[in-house]
Amino acid sequence: MRLGFLGPEGTFTHEALGDVAGEPVPLPTVHDTVMAVHDGRVDRALVPIENSLEGAVNATLDALAIETDDLVIVGEVVHPVHHCLIAAAPLPLDAIEVVASHPQANGQCARFLRSRLPQARVVAVNSTAEAVRSVVADRAATAALGNHLSAGLYDGEILLENVEDDPDNATRFVWIARTPAPGDEVPARRYKTSVVWWGSGDDAPGWLVRCLSEFAFRGVNLTRIESRPRKQRLGHYMFFADLEGRDTDEPVRGALEGLRNHAEQVRDLGSYPAA
Amino acid sequence: MRLGFLGPEGTFTHEALGDVAGEPVPLPTVHDTVMAVHDGRVDRALVPIENSLEGAVNATLDALAIETDDLVIVGEVVHPVHHCLIAAAPLPLDAIEVVASHPQANGQCARFLRSRLPQARVVAVNSTAEAVRSVVADRAATAALGNHLSAGLYDGEILLENVEDDPDNATRFVWIARTPAPGDEVPARRYKTSVVWWGSGDDAPGWLVRCLSEFAFRGVNLTRIESRPRKQRLGHYMFFADLEGRDTDEPVRGALEGLRNHAEQVRDLGSYPAA
Repeated sequence: MRLGFLGPEGTFTHEALGDVAGEPVPLPTVHDTVMAVHDGRVDRALVPIENSLEGAVNATLDALAIETDDLVIVGEVVHPVHHCLIAAAPLPLDAIEVVASHPQANGQCARFLRSRLPQARVVAVNSTAEAVRSVVADRAATAALGNHLSAGLYDGEILLENVEDDPDNATRFVWIARTPAPGDEVPARRYKTSVVWWGSGDDAPGWLVRCLSEFAFRGVNLTRIESRPRKQRLGHYMFFADLEGRDTDEPVRGALEGLRNHAEQVRDLGSYPAA
Repeated sequence: MRLGFLGPEGTFTHEALGDVAGEPVPLPTVHDTVMAVHDGRVDRALVPIENSLEGAVNATLDALAIETDDLVIVGEVVHPVHHCLIAAAPLPLDAIEVVASHPQANGQCARFLRSRLPQARVVAVNSTAEAVRSVVADRAATAALGNHLSAGLYDGEILLENVEDDPDNATRFVWIARTPAPGDEVPARRYKTSVVWWGSGDDAPGWLVRCLSEFAFRGVNLTRIESRPRKQRLGHYMFFADLEGRDTDEPVRGALEGLRNHAEQVRDLGSYPAA
């Protein structure tokens, strides 16, 4: 089983893979990681979907809803995210001219960067591990935000630990696949279902309430809702929701059926054991 | 009147300012632009709040809801956003090694970048105009995404025009101030009201539906809803909504009053003439 993740080795996604059986395949961007499942280059992939400080990972949502229509979510992983400030060699904080990392990492450490490194220019690269690798290779007055794993892999010097703006910083990842495999049918006590929908009548008063009422009337709890542009004109959105329950069970099944009365498109992104 | 905007000169925000009376004051980041109004360094500021391709501008939402509690929205501007690919001098596309721009611009041109410049590394800087200025100054195998205004200001060479992924690409900006000034009381036919709320009972089934029902029951239309993390644990969000109508008029006033029955915090971010 080939398992795609945002590379290079040492990213938080790599960390979150843990000791799952299979061959890890690093990929250059989150978008490419989702597309690698779609194309069959990997069998499944672990991708970040939301962070407790920075919110939705738009590249994942857009690739799942707009760029593909054949992928399902088969599992989720919630992983704590602690950032280190890493350089090629010991360096006083006021000598750091540039801080490089993934935009989500820069966002998760935004207050730290503003208060402790006000002189540093913040630049965005494709992943935290890529930032650490390049900072160590360049040996300039540059530091990266990344994890212990990447500091070890690329021989970086940890200048500070736990620089994230909240000690409970965590990212939720989801496993995606083209079709659920037999091994995905792990019995679980609690399931979640992810859906995305949009509507042609979404500018009528109360449209979103009518959509959400299909869940509320049946006692189906939403654990998350996100809106994203439909990439058309301003004012037209698609809605991502995570529901408690399984799409084969009555309340969720009935709610999705009811939702189809209001929405032009309803996609069931899959049911999976809740983390 | 000192008017803050994301600088340097030549950004899309600078373009969107148009010929409004006042002294434009360029600021280094969106966060700093909001904080400059809060601190009184400027009288008001124009900041991007959502884009038709890339969605919410998180730095604006977070600064308005979490970092400050004294700012109001006093107006909105919808501005078309057309990107050029700009370099120091004529350069074949396959010789471009790096593309620099604001992350929103990189997102708005993501398909273009993947299909036409697959070899280029995409790096993020603080603004589109900053990207153009630095690319022209460095004269390396680097290009920037920015507007005609910035190409003219910094003497950049336009390699390609209209490289955004959708020709209708547009950004909605809002004017923010500490208190509405008399000049803000422009009579208008249509008003919008922006609100942000969050709740302590937000994990109960149907909580969001009960909140939104306060608007639906009164026929108040939502033109937009966004969720953002409350920067605490995963699963706790704040909700931003734009409503049709004015907060001094009955349906909106009553809906906000009703919302306070469900939400721990309801902030009226202001009413302003709809663009």
